Amino acid sequence: MIRFIPGVDTYTHEKIRTGQVDSKFGIPIAKLEDVFPEILQKKNLNYTGIHCHIGSQLLETQFHLQAITEMGHAIQRIKDKFGIETRNLNIGGGLGVKYTGDDKPVAVKDFVDIIINKFKETCQELKIPVPRIIIEPGRSIVAEAGITLYQVGAIKKIDGLKKYLLVNGGMADNPRPSLYDAKYEAVIVNKFNQKPAEDVTIAGKYCESGDILIKNIKLPEADHGDLIVFFSTGAYHHAMASNYNGIPRPAVVLVNKGKDDLMVKRETYDDLNNNHVLPAWLKN
Amino acid sequence: MIRFIPGVDTYTHEKIRTGQVDSKFGIPIAKLEDVFPEILQKKNLNYTGIHCHIGSQLLETQFHLQAITEMGHAIQRIKDKFGIETRNLNIGGGLGVKYTGDDKPVAVKDFVDIIINKFKETCQELKIPVPRIIIEPGRSIVAEAGITLYQVGAIKKIDGLKKYLLVNGGMADNPRPSLYDAKYEAVIVNKFNQKPAEDVTIAGKYCESGDILIKNIKLPEADHGDLIVFFSTGAYHHAMASNYNGIPRPAVVLVNKGKDDLMVKRETYDDLNNNHVLPAWLKN
Repeated sequence: MIRFIPGVDTYTHEKIRTGQVDSKFGIPIAKLEDVFPEILQKKNLNYTGIHCHIGSQLLETQFHLQAITEMGHAIQRIKDKFGIETRNLNIGGGLGVKYTGDDKPVAVKDFVDIIINKFKETCQELKIPVPRIIIEPGRSIVAEAGITLYQVGAIKKIDGLKKYLLVNGGMADNPRPSLYDAKYEAVIVNKFNQKPAEDVTIAGKYCESGDILIKNIKLPEADHGDLIVFFSTGAYHHAMASNYNGIPRPAVVLVNKGKDDLMVKRETYDDLNNNHVLPAWLKN
Repeated sequence: MIRFIPGVDTYTHEKIRTGQVDSKFGIPIAKLEDVFPEILQKKNLNYTGIHCHIGSQLLETQFHLQAITEMGHAIQRIKDKFGIETRNLNIGGGLGVKYTGDDKPVAVKDFVDIIINKFKETCQELKIPVPRIIIEPGRSIVAEAGITLYQVGAIKKIDGLKKYLLVNGGMADNPRPSLYDAKYEAVIVNKFNQKPAEDVTIAGKYCESGDILIKNIKLPEADHGDLIVFFSTGAYHHAMASNYNGIPRPAVVLVNKGKDDLMVKRETYDDLNNNHVLPAWLKN
């Protein structure tokens, strides 16, 4: 697979755009004629197809449609200029998921139908055979399958300004708010049926002011010990977790048809020290 | 120690300010008279002193001077209103370090002299005994003692736009550029004596466009395999590292008087799987 940059700007968060011309990823599609002969000459490489990936958490199909049209033209150029058929086209991932009620992702089936139908038309227009189309729907498979449970510790009320709920997790188990200003919805599990009563900020326990999980959310009045659930934390959460402040990473539990199974054990302090070595000359 | 928020706004990066009134940390200093009696009533608590922490990576003393003056007034109020002497004043950390040539941190000795002299004057004016003063100079002790070595992998040149050096690390071992837009300086170790020849962007290997370690730096012309050293990575680097993209964390080596000792072993793939459990009913 040769990764091309189709030059599609997705207007998503700067840090998760990947298809624009100045991206660190891939080969600009305009360079196809320069790099393709070079790749074909390598005798240990077999050409199987081309790849692109235009960004993450996209809630519309327009950018994928632009990209796949560009990739269709690339396949035509490869056929016309080098006489080679492209059997595989990987259009990467990027299918958005629902983090909050404002996110209206395209259903996977609709996404696939729109993309495939449009691409078939493009192939007909360009007189190229339709290649096998591969997509990478990672986040859209697992994100909404995961939730994170936090417990409320301290509650800090600043008169006339705001109220903080401080929870027993934060930027080390979920760095997305700090990194991308990512938005979440949450409910107090044990007050699920109570009406939202006040605006609060949910902050993590790590030693940074930026460790804020939700800047403003309306919740029932919270108490120390309440359990708060965050939705759509199945992707890019445990996988990005750190041991910041020397805190062991949380457990991951699979819940299926009323049964629970441990998937990842809670890390221990011993785990944290596992790879630490004290040089002999520093002992006593 | 009671942590007070002195209401000092440090104008440092939003995410590392900690002394402003709406901070998630501590008790607003204006609330002293409300909370102090409550704390004194707890029979399992002994009052030993007060604490504040106004922010991180501060390159001037003015904010600490403001804060310590506020804390002096708090000590006076505690004495006048409750008849209690404050024996300890912890003014937290925040001493900046040199990440780049633009950073001109105050030397620790000068910092301490300026703070202590000013505070002694304040105590005299306020007619309070000078308490023991505690500071938390974590970053300023270890940051500049650490460096990170990367190796150049792919080099991507985008005509007329930019040139990327892609290295074998990135946002998982150093999340600071992604989190705070933190700036670094770097040199190519094996070309240390060569003149800088071109502007490059140093990007990490993680699957995010935001994984850029240095946006623009002038370096000698780089080749695949070159070693690049980043300076001042002794604090908030390995401690914040993650296993993003399933990549084991790097080793940490102590270098002292020409001798090297392993301090943290390079993580292995087995380490990554150590706590993973496959529920029996999911096996085959």
